[in-house]
Amino acid sequence: MQIAKVRGTVVSTQKDPSLRGVKLLLLQFVDEEGQLLQSYEVAADSVGAGVDEWVLVSRGSAARQVQGSEQRPLDAAVIAIIDTVYVEDRMIYSKKDQYR
Amino acid sequence: MQIAKVRGTVVSTQKDPSLRGVKLLLLQFVDEEGQLLQSYEVAADSVGAGVDEWVLVSRGSAARQVQGSEQRPLDAAVIAIIDTVYVEDRMIYSKKDQYR
Amino acid sequence: MQIAKVRGTVVSTQKDPSLRGVKLLLLQFVDEEGQLLQSYEVAADSVGAGVDEWVLVSRGSAARQVQGSEQRPLDAAVIAIIDTVYVEDRMIYSKKDQYR
Amino acid sequence: MQIAKVRGTVVSTQKDPSLRGVKLLLLQFVDEEGQLLQSYEVAADSVGAGVDEWVLVSRGSAARQVQGSEQRPLDAAVIAIIDTVYVEDRMIYSKKDQYR
Amino acid sequence: MQIAKVRGTVVSTQKDPSLRGVKLLLLQFVDEEGQLLQSYEVAADSVGAGVDEWVLVSRGSAARQVQGSEQRPLDAAVIAIIDTVYVEDRMIYSKKDQYR
Repeated sequence: MQIAKVRGTVVSTQKDPSLRGVKLLLLQFVDEEGQLLQSYEVAADSVGAGVDEWVLVSRGSAARQVQGSEQRPLDAAVIAIIDTVYVEDRMIYSKKDQYR
Repeated sequence: MQIAKVRGTVVSTQKDPSLRGVKLLLLQFVDEEGQLLQSYEVAADSVGAGVDEWVLVSRGSAARQVQGSEQRPLDAAVIAIIDTVYVEDRMIYSKKDQYR
Repeated sequence: MQIAKVRGTVVSTQKDPSLRGVKLLLLQFVDEEGQLLQSYEVAADSVGAGVDEWVLVSRGSAARQVQGSEQRPLDAAVIAIIDTVYVEDRMIYSKKDQYR
Repeated sequence: MQIAKVRGTVVSTQKDPSLRGVKLLLLQFVDEEGQLLQSYEVAADSVGAGVDEWVLVSRGSAARQVQGSEQRPLDAAVIAIIDTVYVEDRMIYSKKDQYR
Repeated sequence: MQIAKVRGTVVSTQKDPSLRGVKLLLLQFVDEEGQLLQSYEVAADSVGAGVDEWVLVSRGSAARQVQGSEQRPLDAAVIAIIDTVYVEDRMIYSKKDQYR
C-alpha cells in the first residue's frame, strides 16, 4: 500500500451505475519522509477521510475487497486513516499533533 | 483511478471476438493541476465520453467489472465523465464552464 | 491498453507446458504520436499480427481472458490489430496506407 | 517479488474492519547490490519481520494469498525474511552476519 | 511478459508456509537489444533455469497460474527459458551459441 495525503474531491454524475453513492477523493502521494510527490490517485473512500489527512491507499483488485465494492470498477481505495508513521524509533508523522 | 482527457479514438477490425461493439478511446493523462502528461491509455468507453472531456479511468481487472465486460481482455475502462475536481476548496476543473 | 508495434518473435522450447502452441511476439511501445518508445513487451498473439503492424496490447489478468488462455501464466496479450488512430480529427496512423 | 528492508511501522485505528490485528510495516526497496532506493511500500506482515531485516514483498492480488487475508483490501505483503542473496557465486547479503 | 537474465538466487527459511520447496531466482531485466537494465525481480522458478540464461518472466496473478502455485503469495514466475529472440529477421539472442 502507499501513503497519501487527501487533497480534494472528484465529482461525476455520468458514470458507471455501480459508482452511485461512492465518494471519490483526490490523493497526493508522499515519500517516506512526508514530502508531497508529483503523483496523485483518485480513490474511493470507505473510512471517512478528510482533506489534509494521511491515508493508506490500496490499488488493483484489492480496492474491490472493501465491503460493497466487490463488483465496482474501482482500482484504488482508501483503506485506513493513518495515526502514526515510525521510521525506526523516529516518529515522522502523527495525526494528533501533526508532528513531523 | 486516474484523471485523463479524451483525445481521440482507436479502430480495429481484426481483434478478439469479444471486443466487437466496444468503443476504444485514446486518453491522455493529466496531472493534478490539469496539465497534459506525456502518457496515454487506450480504454473501453461505457459512459459515452467525447473528445476533450475529462474522464476517470480504471485499470487492471477493475476494467472488467463494467457490465458486459466480465470476459473481455480489457485492462482499462472509462468509468465516469468528470464534472468537477477540487483541490482543497479550489476548483481546478469544471465540465460546465471548462473553468480551470 | 497500450499501442505497440510488432518488432519480432521470442521462441522457447523449455517452458510451462500450457504455453505449447502459443506464439510470442516482441512488441515495442509507441507514444501517442507514433514514436517508438524505449520499452518493450513480450505478448501472446491470438489475432495473427505481423512484424511492423500496430497492435493493441492488454496486460495483467486481462491477458488470460483470451479464449484458451484462462489457465496460462501469461500477463500480456495482443488483442487487436489497429486499423486507425485518430487524435481529435487528425489521423495519426492508418494500417492501409501507413499514413502517419 | 521485490527485496526490501524493514524501516518502521504504520499504525491506524480508523480503518477497514478486516484490517484489525494486521501489522503494517514500512519497507524501503533495495537494488540488487543492496543500496536503499527512493521508493517504499507499506505491507502487511505475516512472518514476524523486524526493523533492518531484508524481506521479500509480494504485491497485487498475491498479497491476499496469505492465510487469513483472502478478503482483506491489501495489495502488498511481506512473505519471507531473507537469509541470503547470491549474485552468481558472490553473496551480496547474509542475515546471519549482515555480510554484504 | 519481460525478458530477464538469471543472475542468482534468494534463500529464506522464515517464510509463508506455502513457499516451502519453491526455488527463488534473482533476475535482472534486459532491454530489447540485450543490455542489462538497472531493475531486477525475484521470481519463482518452475522450468529449471540456470544462472546467465535468458528467461521469460510473468508478473501479477499470472505467476499463480503455474501448476501448484495457485494459492501461493507469488507475484512473479519464470515461465520459459528463451531459445532465440528475433527483431525483424535479425537474431539478437540465441541460447545455443550465445549469439547476439
